[in-house]
Amino acid sequence: MGLEGFFNPKSVAIVGASHKKGKVGHEILTNMIKSGFAGQIFPINNKAEAIEGLKCYPDLKSIGKVPELVVVVIPAPAVPAVMQDCAKMGVKSVIIITAGFKEVGKEGAEIERQVVRIAKQAGIRVIGPNCLGVIAPANRVNASFGGELPKTGAIGYISQSGALLAAILDMANANGIGFSKLVSIGNKADVDELDVIRALAEDKETKVIAGYLESINNGNAFVRLAEQISTDKPLLLVKAGVTSAGAKAASSHTGSLAGSETAYECVFERAGIIRCTSIQQQFDFAQAFAYQPVPSGPNVAVITNAGGPGIMAADAIEQQGLTFAKLSDETVKKLAAKLPPAANLYNPVDVLGDALADRYELALGAALDDPKVDIVLVLLTPQAMTEAVPTAQAIVKIAHQKRDKPVLACFLGATKIQDAIRILREGGIPQYESPESAVATIKAMHDHVRWLRRPKRIVKMFPVNRRKVEAIIERHLRQQMREIGEADSKEILEAYGFLTPRGSIATTAEQAANIAGQIGYPVVLKIWSPDIIHKSDVGGVKLGLRNDHEVMDAFDLMMYRVAKKMPDTEILGVLVQEMCKKGREVILGMHRDPHFGPLMMFGMGGIMVEVLKDVSFYLAPLTEEEAKQMLMATRTYQILKGVRGQESVDIEVIAEGLQRLSQLVTEFPEIKEMDINPYMVGPEGTIPIAVDARISVERV
Amino acid sequence: MGLEGFFNPKSVAIVGASHKKGKVGHEILTNMIKSGFAGQIFPINNKAEAIEGLKCYPDLKSIGKVPELVVVVIPAPAVPAVMQDCAKMGVKSVIIITAGFKEVGKEGAEIERQVVRIAKQAGIRVIGPNCLGVIAPANRVNASFGGELPKTGAIGYISQSGALLAAILDMANANGIGFSKLVSIGNKADVDELDVIRALAEDKETKVIAGYLESINNGNAFVRLAEQISTDKPLLLVKAGVTSAGAKAASSHTGSLAGSETAYECVFERAGIIRCTSIQQQFDFAQAFAYQPVPSGPNVAVITNAGGPGIMAADAIEQQGLTFAKLSDETVKKLAAKLPPAANLYNPVDVLGDALADRYELALGAALDDPKVDIVLVLLTPQAMTEAVPTAQAIVKIAHQKRDKPVLACFLGATKIQDAIRILREGGIPQYESPESAVATIKAMHDHVRWLRRPKRIVKMFPVNRRKVEAIIERHLRQQMREIGEADSKEILEAYGFLTPRGSIATTAEQAANIAGQIGYPVVLKIWSPDIIHKSDVGGVKLGLRNDHEVMDAFDLMMYRVAKKMPDTEILGVLVQEMCKKGREVILGMHRDPHFGPLMMFGMGGIMVEVLKDVSFYLAPLTEEEAKQMLMATRTYQILKGVRGQESVDIEVIAEGLQRLSQLVTEFPEIKEMDINPYMVGPEGTIPIAVDARISVERV
Repeated sequence: MGLEGFFNPKSVAIVGASHKKGKVGHEILTNMIKSGFAGQIFPINNKAEAIEGLKCYPDLKSIGKVPELVVVVIPAPAVPAVMQDCAKMGVKSVIIITAGFKEVGKEGAEIERQVVRIAKQAGIRVIGPNCLGVIAPANRVNASFGGELPKTGAIGYISQSGALLAAILDMANANGIGFSKLVSIGNKADVDELDVIRALAEDKETKVIAGYLESINNGNAFVRLAEQISTDKPLLLVKAGVTSAGAKAASSHTGSLAGSETAYECVFERAGIIRCTSIQQQFDFAQAFAYQPVPSGPNVAVITNAGGPGIMAADAIEQQGLTFAKLSDETVKKLAAKLPPAANLYNPVDVLGDALADRYELALGAALDDPKVDIVLVLLTPQAMTEAVPTAQAIVKIAHQKRDKPVLACFLGATKIQDAIRILREGGIPQYESPESAVATIKAMHDHVRWLRRPKRIVKMFPVNRRKVEAIIERHLRQQMREIGEADSKEILEAYGFLTPRGSIATTAEQAANIAGQIGYPVVLKIWSPDIIHKSDVGGVKLGLRNDHEVMDAFDLMMYRVAKKMPDTEILGVLVQEMCKKGREVILGMHRDPHFGPLMMFGMGGIMVEVLKDVSFYLAPLTEEEAKQMLMATRTYQILKGVRGQESVDIEVIAEGLQRLSQLVTEFPEIKEMDINPYMVGPEGTIPIAVDARISVERV
Repeated sequence: MGLEGFFNPKSVAIVGASHKKGKVGHEILTNMIKSGFAGQIFPINNKAEAIEGLKCYPDLKSIGKVPELVVVVIPAPAVPAVMQDCAKMGVKSVIIITAGFKEVGKEGAEIERQVVRIAKQAGIRVIGPNCLGVIAPANRVNASFGGELPKTGAIGYISQSGALLAAILDMANANGIGFSKLVSIGNKADVDELDVIRALAEDKETKVIAGYLESINNGNAFVRLAEQISTDKPLLLVKAGVTSAGAKAASSHTGSLAGSETAYECVFERAGIIRCTSIQQQFDFAQAFAYQPVPSGPNVAVITNAGGPGIMAADAIEQQGLTFAKLSDETVKKLAAKLPPAANLYNPVDVLGDALADRYELALGAALDDPKVDIVLVLLTPQAMTEAVPTAQAIVKIAHQKRDKPVLACFLGATKIQDAIRILREGGIPQYESPESAVATIKAMHDHVRWLRRPKRIVKMFPVNRRKVEAIIERHLRQQMREIGEADSKEILEAYGFLTPRGSIATTAEQAANIAGQIGYPVVLKIWSPDIIHKSDVGGVKLGLRNDHEVMDAFDLMMYRVAKKMPDTEILGVLVQEMCKKGREVILGMHRDPHFGPLMMFGMGGIMVEVLKDVSFYLAPLTEEEAKQMLMATRTYQILKGVRGQESVDIEVIAEGLQRLSQLVTEFPEIKEMDINPYMVGPEGTIPIAVDARISVERV
C-alpha cells in the first residue's frame, strides 16, 4: 500500500518525453535529468532517436526492462493503451500528468474510469491524472513540471492544486525551504489524500505533513487516520472551498447554526489537525514543527535589540492568550552581571540597539536555562552596530546546545539580514517576517501540545432501550414520515434515559382541564400538529396556566387562532403538560454532516439560541471530557455555574445528557437532525427535563 | 507650524559628523551625500579638516551662514550648548539623533527640558531626541542613519520606534516601495505625532499617511485632527502597547467591560483611522490606498489561471463579508467569445493554466467594464506557458486605461515572478503575497469608503436641567463622596429626561408596607446603603412582592441577612419601589478614558451583561445615527426587534436614551463612570424606565 515506487524508483520511463522546450514532456524529462537521479531514465517517444542525450524508445515494451515508475504525458485518449502496456509488463507505479479526464466532462470521466479499472486489475497505483507530479529531493526524483528540485528537508507536502504547488515550490526554492516529498494528487482517480498522508506518516524523512486540500473523500477514515498520525507527526492543512451553500433548509436549530465550516472545525479539533489560514501561515508553522521541539508550557521570553518590535511581540502574546514569561531572579541576576546598565533585564529582554552577537548569545542562553521559560523568541532589527550574521550563528549554536525548548527568530528587514536568515534556516531556526506571525506560530505549537496531552478517549455506554427506538424510527421510515412527533420523540428520549414532562393530548377544552387536574397545576398547553415545527411562532404555546378556567380559555383561544393563522394545517389537539420547575434552558442538539457524521451541539436554549449563537460543536461520539469541554466552550457555562448569587446548576448531568444524546445518534444513523430544546436544568441534585424535542429521520 | 525646514532644507549642518565608518555621525553624513542632496552640507567637527571631501567647521558659528537644518549627533550633555548656538544664529529646524535623554532617567530628562526651553524661546522646532532622523526622497534628503534613500512614492511614514523604521526601510528598499517622507519622532520632546501627521496631511506628495505609534499625547486633539484628515488622506496606523493593565478596579459594568483596547477601537472608528495588525499588513493596505482608487461597492471579481488560488480568494471574500461579484450577461458573452471552451466564464474567471497575457488582458478589461464589478483581483501562478512579465504589463496598461476601479494583483511564487512584480509595483498595481492578504486589503478599502460616506455628524441637544445636576455633583465632590446614591442618581437621571420608578425609603417593616400601599402592588425592595454596590450579590434585592405580608417579611429578612453578611456596613433602610412592567432589560453606560474621554456603552442588561459581553462602545458625544449603530452592533438588537413572535421594543427611544446619557457625561466631565442598568424597555409606544443607576464622580 506504500508509495515507495513513486518516491524511490530505480528506473523511470517518461511516456511522451519531448525535445521541444516549454512542452511538459520536455520539462519533466529535463527536471529528472537535472536533479541528478541515480537510476535509469527511459524517454518514450516514437519520433525521436534520442532526447537530451538519452536513447529514446518507441514504446514501453521496447525498453526490454520493467521501469519501476512510469510518468505519462500524452493526451488522455491514448492513456488507456499505455496503462494496458504497464499492466502487461508488471509496472506498479504510474503518474498521469495529462489533463482532459474527469475534470472536463463525460468523455474524460469515461477514460478515467477505464484507467482505474486497468490499474485495479493489475495492482497498479496511479497518481493523477491532471497533476503536477511527484518530487522526492533526497532521492533526486523530480518527476514533475513544477520547477527545480528543492532542498531536502523534513516537510512532506500534498496538494490538490498543481498550479499552487508550482508556486509553493518557487517560493520555497527562493527561501531555501526544504521538503521530504511533494505530491500533486490531481483528480485522485486512485491514490487520494489518505494514501499520501499515510505514506508520509510512514516516511522517515518526513517530520511534518502539510497539505492543500479542497475536498476529502472518506470522512470517517480521514478522521481516524489523521487522529492517529497527529500523535506522531503534526498535520498542517489549508482547507479551501469553505464557501457556504448547504444548511439552508435545516429545520432544527442545530442544523441552522451549523455552518459549512463547523464540520471541518470539529474534525480538525478532534484529529489534532493544525488548520492554517493561508499558505504563508502554513510554512510559518511547518518550519517550527519540523525543526524545533514543541514547548512544554505557554511562557514566552522575548529577546530584542529595539523596544518597538518587543512591544509588538508582547501585544501578540497577550492577544493569543499565551503567557509573557516572568524571568526567575537567577536569570535577571545573570543578565544584570553581563548586560549594560540601560538594558532591560526583564521580559522582553532588551539587549539595546548597539548589541553585538555576544549579548544575544548571553541572553538566549540565560532564557533557555530559566525553568520559568518554555519558548524563546529572538527579535533583531538591523541597526548601525548590529551583527546580523554572527548573531544568527550564536542563536543556532545556543539553540543546538540546549535542545529541549523551541527557539524562533524574527529578524526584521530584507537586504541587511538576508545572509543571517540563510544561516538561521540552515541551522533549523525558523525565521518570521513579523513578531505577529512568530507568535501565531507559538500559539499553534502550544495548542498542539494541549491536544497531544488530552485525556485518553473513553466513550461511556449507557444502558438503554435500543429496541424501542428502532421500532419507532422504523415505523416512521416505513410511513415516509421525516419528522417524529412529540409523543414518539418523548418515548425515544425516555428510552435513552432522559426525563420528560408528564402530559397527555386533549381534543376538547374540558378534557384539557381534566388532564391538568390529574397532573397538578400549573400546566402548559402546546398545539399538537405534525405540520407545525416552531410552535411558539404561531402562538401555539401557553405557559403557566393556573386553574381550570385558564386552561379552558387557553385551549379554545389556541384552537381558534392557530387554525385561523394556518388554515391548511391539520391540528390533532392540544398537549397538556406539566409545567417544569424554574431552571435554566439549554439546548442539546445534533446535526449529521454528510461526510463526517453526527456533530453534537450545546448552547443556551429557548428562543435565544439562534440570536445569541452562543453554541459549541463537537464530533460524536463524545467522551465525558469532551462533553464537559463543550459546556465550557460557551459563555452560557458561566451562567450555569451561577452568576451574581444565583444557584449553580448540575454541570455533570448536562454533560451526561450530551453523552446520552451522542450515544443515541451514533447508534441510529437514521437520525438526521435532532434538538432537545429546552433541556431544563435545575440546581445541583435535580434531574434535568427534556421539555421539547425535534427529531428528523431518513433512510440510510 | 509646518515642517518644511526638515523636509526641504537648502542647507544642512551635521553637528558631530565623523569620518569613522560605523559611527552614526559618519552614516548620516554619507547618507546625505549619497542621496544626491542639491543644497550645501556642513560637517561640524572640531578635530577634522574635511570629511568625505567636504570642508569641516569646528562649530556652527564658524560656517558663516545659517544652515536651514541642523542635525545633532553629539552626546546629550553637549546638546544644550549647540541649541544655544542655533538660537543665536536663527536656525529654525533641529533634529537631535542622540539618545541619553528622558528615556534613561532623571539627568537625561533635565537635559531634554533644557533643550525644549531653548527651542520654545527661540522658535526652533526640534525632532527627537533619540530618533533615527528624517527622510524626504523627492528632495534627496536623508538626514538619518536608517539606510539608503528609498524611492520616491506616495506613502508618508511616521514612527515612534527608530529601529523599526530602519527595518521598514530595508524591506521597502528591497521591494521597491517608495515614500514621500519618513519621520522618526523619538522622544517627541517638541514635534509630536500630531505635528507630523498635520504636516503630512498638508504635503502634496503624500497620499497615504502611515505610522507606528506606541502612545498618543493629546487624545482629543488627535481625534479631531485624524477625523478631519481621514476624509482626504487615509491614515493607516499600527498602534502597539495594547497590553492590558487598567480597568481592573472599575466599579461599574461599563468600566469592567471596557478593555484597554476599547478606547483606541472607538477612536479609530470615529476618526476613520485604518488600524493595521502588523507592519506587513500596513504596507499591504498602504500600497492600495496610495496607488488605486477606492471601490464604490463590495463586488469583487477574481481572474485566475488556476483553480486553487481562485477558491482561496473566494473563501476569503466570503469570510471578510465582501460580495463575490455576479458578472453581467454581457461580460460572460464577451469572455465566451474569446476564451477557450474549458475556461470558467463566471466568477472566478479561470483563463486556464496555459493562458498567455492576452487572455488576462481580455478578462481584466471585460471585468472592469462590468457595472456589476467594483474591484478586480488578478491571480497568477507561474505555470509552464505563463507569461508573467507580459501579463503584468497588460494589467498595468488596462488598469491605467480604466482608472475608476481598483485593481489588485496576487502573483504567487518568487523567482519566476520577480520581474513581473517589479513591473506591477512601478505601474502602481499593488501586489500581494497571498489571496488572503489581497482580500483583507479590499476589505479595508471597502470599510474606509463606508466611513467616508457616513452621514454628517449632528449631535442633538435635549433641553435638560443642568443646574440641578451641577448642584448634586458639587455636593458630592465637596463631601468627598465618589459614589452617588440611588436617590440623587434618580434626580440626575430625571433632570436629563429619564423616567425612573416611583418609590421611597422605609426604615421599618410597617413603613415599607405603607409605602407599598401608596405605590400599588407589586413592589420591589432594595437594601439602602452607600457601601453596597452590587445589591443582588448580597441578597439585597427582592422582586415582585404582592401584599403587605410579603413586604414586611421581605423587609425583616433583608435587614437581618444583609447585616449578618456584611456586619460593618451602614444600612440606612430599604427602598420600596414600583415594580416595572415586564420588558427587556438593557444597559446604557459610560466609562471615561483618561486620554479620549467618555466611551458610551450599550448592551443586554441585568445580571447577564458581564457574562454574555454582548456590548458595543462608541466615543461620546453621540449622534442619533451613532446611537442606533451602537444598538445594531449587538446581538441583543435582534432580541429587541422581536424574535419568535415576541413584541418588538421601541428602538428609537433607546437610541434617545443613549444620546441623553451622552449629553449628560459630555456636559459633566466630573462623571467618571456610569451605568443605567437595567434600563427597562417595553413595546413600541411605551417609555423606558431607568430602574437602577450607578454614578461615580471625581474632581477634574
